[in-house]
Amino acid sequence: MLDKIIEGIYRGDHRSISRAISIVENEGDSENTRNLIRQIYQRTGNAHIVGITGPPGIGKSTMIGNICALLSERGKKVSVVAIDASSPFTGGSLLGNRIRMQESLTKYGVYMRSLANRGINGGLSRSIWDTVKILDAAGSDFIIVETVGAGQADLDVINLADTVIVVLGPGLGDEIQAIKAGIMEIGHVFVINKMDRQGAYIAMKDIEETLAMMPRGEWKPPVVGINSLTREGYDTLIESICKHRSFCETNREARLRKFRTELQMHIDDELRRKFQKDINGVLKDEGRLEEYLLRRIDPYSAAEEIVEEIA
Amino acid sequence: MLDKIIEGIYRGDHRSISRAISIVENEGDSENTRNLIRQIYQRTGNAHIVGITGPPGIGKSTMIGNICALLSERGKKVSVVAIDASSPFTGGSLLGNRIRMQESLTKYGVYMRSLANRGINGGLSRSIWDTVKILDAAGSDFIIVETVGAGQADLDVINLADTVIVVLGPGLGDEIQAIKAGIMEIGHVFVINKMDRQGAYIAMKDIEETLAMMPRGEWKPPVVGINSLTREGYDTLIESICKHRSFCETNREARLRKFRTELQMHIDDELRRKFQKDINGVLKDEGRLEEYLLRRIDPYSAAEEIVEEIA
Repeated sequence: MLDKIIEGIYRGDHRSISRAISIVENEGDSENTRNLIRQIYQRTGNAHIVGITGPPGIGKSTMIGNICALLSERGKKVSVVAIDASSPFTGGSLLGNRIRMQESLTKYGVYMRSLANRGINGGLSRSIWDTVKILDAAGSDFIIVETVGAGQADLDVINLADTVIVVLGPGLGDEIQAIKAGIMEIGHVFVINKMDRQGAYIAMKDIEETLAMMPRGEWKPPVVGINSLTREGYDTLIESICKHRSFCETNREARLRKFRTELQMHIDDELRRKFQKDINGVLKDEGRLEEYLLRRIDPYSAAEEIVEEIA
Repeated sequence: MLDKIIEGIYRGDHRSISRAISIVENEGDSENTRNLIRQIYQRTGNAHIVGITGPPGIGKSTMIGNICALLSERGKKVSVVAIDASSPFTGGSLLGNRIRMQESLTKYGVYMRSLANRGINGGLSRSIWDTVKILDAAGSDFIIVETVGAGQADLDVINLADTVIVVLGPGLGDEIQAIKAGIMEIGHVFVINKMDRQGAYIAMKDIEETLAMMPRGEWKPPVVGINSLTREGYDTLIESICKHRSFCETNREARLRKFRTELQMHIDDELRRKFQKDINGVLKDEGRLEEYLLRRIDPYSAAEEIVEEIA
């Protein structure tokens, strides 16, 4: 079965891609997942990963629809992964935007997939990395990963993406100062959406000035103003993405950093996997837990003891 | 210095508590953190942890203010921990509510602290557990932990809390179906806020009917309607919390489950800690990473090899 799915992935068949992603999303790091990634791994490494992050309601979905259209028109194969906010409380409203985005993507044959955070510790991270590999092996030139600013998922996208686009807009008012503190370091391209609205130029200038004051690396992040209705500014945006892609291709250090992050995640998982059977044994030992219930030993000391025993 | 802080914690001195929480929040699982928790651990185990979760804008902060007032008036010592949404994009607006809540708590001498997700993998979880221990050792009868529905933080609160309160309201409309799927299993008490609004009774009935169809455990979650302006329903709510507290005190299984969760977290951290030096060595080995860059070995196989070597 796996062989057929893999063959389908190489053909770019959407159904096979979906089945493969369901494996890595639902089965965790099972033998199936491992075999799948092992087999397709050599066919990966060609896609450029673009992470897009920004506050809810800023127009990320529409923007992604437009970027996909423009890249597709230039003959590029694009895929989209949307990371769900992972909250049972905000899932509903997001879904609507996603469905509208999906409709506009169908026209260009763009594959789009939502990944839900099932709340399994660490599980989301791994499934994002694996999903991107599947889309990479399926021949994507660009893989766009959208996040809605939800903790760990956000951090994953930053680690995984070659190019991080931070989308802001006018009307964020005083909040922009608080926001800026968290995002100035992560963006390779800054986008101000809704350039027709009041305050857009001020927001743009604000970001530019902050960037000018920051220590300069080799890459100087551009600030691009766009209007998603008129598609104003989109050519500059696409150009910025492509420029950063070229920059990345010569940046061995950035690629090494990305590999290190991924490898660390897998090593952590593998360590847990190796010792989980022993750990489960300890956790089932009620006599031992009793010591804990009676506060005779604190959790840090208990963990030190246990690891000393099993590892 | 630590001795003085600990002495202050036992006196319930807010400044010492703040300094202790800053240690566990900023220093990670350093020797300082470990020593602190080790020393105060025997003084913990008396507080009842109440987790409160629900969609943004549902009125959680006002509700927590009222609960604190009512419990304080009954002579109970209450502390509050608010977990930040961890998104740089939504931090600003939440802060306002938190500040308003804090003002109303000052009157009753309730200690309140916000914990920010700094984006360190796993770091937030540990600092939540440790913070609760500090507040427990400070003599809290109740520790209220508020989360805004943000992935891992949410899950932590569910694991850590003895009583989980899910707050909903009227006007969630169609979304309530999507929400219900994620939360019916986690709540010990369901609250419908804004009972003066249209649709509140429908929402209440909807939750009650869903609960009636679920497999029944020993505890049957009550559904409590409240109005935060008139304080209508709050006596019933406080009573439900106290009833569930009594229920928990006889529920050894739930306490064991909680210990297991915490211990697993610490063991995972400890495993990583034990092997991190070796892992760092591998991650610095550029020759080895080169194999990876050239796609000669996939990340799963590489991690297996590395763990085989070092562990």
